[in-house]
Amino acid sequence: MKATTKISVAQFGLGPIGLETIKFAAGKPWVEVLGGIDNDPAKVGRDLGELTGLRRLRGLKVHGCLEDLDAIARPDVIFHTAVSNLKDAAAQIEPMARRGISVVSSCEELLFPRFRDPTLAARLDRLCRKTGARVIGTGVNPGFVMDLLPVCLTGVSRSVSGVHIQRVVDASTRRESLQRKIGCGMTPAEFRRRFNQGKVGHAGLKDSLALIAHCLRWNVTQIVESGDAVAASHEIRTAFFQVKTGETCGLHQHAEARLRGKLRLTLDLKMYLDAPNPHDAIQIEGDPPLRVVIENGVAGDQATIAALVNTASRLLGAPPGLLLLTDLPAPRIA
Amino acid sequence: MKATTKISVAQFGLGPIGLETIKFAAGKPWVEVLGGIDNDPAKVGRDLGELTGLRRLRGLKVHGCLEDLDAIARPDVIFHTAVSNLKDAAAQIEPMARRGISVVSSCEELLFPRFRDPTLAARLDRLCRKTGARVIGTGVNPGFVMDLLPVCLTGVSRSVSGVHIQRVVDASTRRESLQRKIGCGMTPAEFRRRFNQGKVGHAGLKDSLALIAHCLRWNVTQIVESGDAVAASHEIRTAFFQVKTGETCGLHQHAEARLRGKLRLTLDLKMYLDAPNPHDAIQIEGDPPLRVVIENGVAGDQATIAALVNTASRLLGAPPGLLLLTDLPAPRIA
Repeated sequence: MKATTKISVAQFGLGPIGLETIKFAAGKPWVEVLGGIDNDPAKVGRDLGELTGLRRLRGLKVHGCLEDLDAIARPDVIFHTAVSNLKDAAAQIEPMARRGISVVSSCEELLFPRFRDPTLAARLDRLCRKTGARVIGTGVNPGFVMDLLPVCLTGVSRSVSGVHIQRVVDASTRRESLQRKIGCGMTPAEFRRRFNQGKVGHAGLKDSLALIAHCLRWNVTQIVESGDAVAASHEIRTAFFQVKTGETCGLHQHAEARLRGKLRLTLDLKMYLDAPNPHDAIQIEGDPPLRVVIENGVAGDQATIAALVNTASRLLGAPPGLLLLTDLPAPRIA
Repeated sequence: MKATTKISVAQFGLGPIGLETIKFAAGKPWVEVLGGIDNDPAKVGRDLGELTGLRRLRGLKVHGCLEDLDAIARPDVIFHTAVSNLKDAAAQIEPMARRGISVVSSCEELLFPRFRDPTLAARLDRLCRKTGARVIGTGVNPGFVMDLLPVCLTGVSRSVSGVHIQRVVDASTRRESLQRKIGCGMTPAEFRRRFNQGKVGHAGLKDSLALIAHCLRWNVTQIVESGDAVAASHEIRTAFFQVKTGETCGLHQHAEARLRGKLRLTLDLKMYLDAPNPHDAIQIEGDPPLRVVIENGVAGDQATIAALVNTASRLLGAPPGLLLLTDLPAPRIA
């Protein structure tokens, strides 16, 4: 991409991922940052350069809502890093799409929105087509390791009879919100209770599975998901949590689907403190069989930020609509 | 893809890969085969069903040239598996493109044709845009393991400072023409002489490297390629060759490029009989670092055939032109 055709961007959601995303984007020669949006009263009105610690963002403001930013500038793309839930995300994104602003979101349920809510997805898609906006959900998981990359691997498959993915993440060095999300410090019973309420756990595992099934044109009617606590075998102290032996230090989450009774898709995720041998493994059963291992795995937060920013220019080249990562040109650094 | 929108195809080049390609394509519900083309007098006029051993292709003919096929039917796509050289491929493909027929080719130098011959590439691209044809080169190597897949992996990269790829192929079970191409049975001196003449060796290694550099927007000015014989450490007998100890049983080929003096891209290919531990390894140096291993590697011929057929429908959805794999939507089984 030539530096002459800059893409103007804004950041919606200035939590840890949002701040890192806009800082990273600001360093790209093809990006022009217009401002940030966050409804946190402690952030509204502040200088984006000061908030991020990035000199080149000085003079840009944190706006309390889209309307306030829109009164002074309209970006080509908004990076949206605010919620995991599709309904909440759509409520935030629709006003952007209505203005023709394209959106790259980390919302896990936007990975394959038809799966979560076909009516809402169809409405958002129609809106985008009318205004010329493109909206997409991306990230590293969901968004790459357990969905897009396995789909890419089938590009050299004559036939596929199963896709089985394991991801083991050592959560020790991850951010506080992730360590909280995986239940650190809870009793296993408390974890299970809150997992069943959807209050802890990894968001997007079913969505990853559904996207793979969609790309394989497999009519999966039921996705079974389970999750349990991993109990600490020793006392673990992170920058944010102190976990006693027997308390929850992370999770083991699993999604699977059958086709005509046969287990065809399994996504298995272990994410806990001090997890040994972190890695990602993708097995494509079929002709030819493929077994791919990413040693040490794909680092979560840094890769998520990269995925968000790298997606923007490919997104703007695509036709308007509520899009899937598998609709866009092959992923690459931008 | 719905079976209602069939893609009509023909096969140009009825060697081992061509025959397997059209047989495999014929089994897809979205494909309608119209015929074959080959200039081999022993094949012209024969029944494609008889030649392939595939009942459903009975009644279709092997034509001696494009014009003869075109007199009775015009396919949407031609699978072109005939030559490695761009000039020869272009001479065969231009009449197809002139008729608006799209082409999926295994020609190694079509992977990134601007690299080989920018004038020829520009001319073919203009022709395609005029007639609505799409032309692309694909395969497993080049076409996937040492180019497209590494590019896809950078989709989660904040920065990339180097890409290093090793591919080790056990050539024992591969087809005769491949075993010949890697020099089996020659003296190492003979191999080196013929390698330097471009008569043996793997085609496309520099092209793979150039495509990666292009996607990274690295202005690589020189690609250094070398190749040497691997001498057999013991007598090896394949279905086609008998190689004595000390004779060539395959090759070790290497391409690399520097950027501002630093070695940034290396593609290393070992392809020989009885090669131990066959695998593909892709290392992305950068943030985050990535090391991906495909255990046992991606099987050559079967995966090449799959790549050709899987590319057709994605190609027809793209805008007309002489295209790159990295222009198309993310690879997947079709």
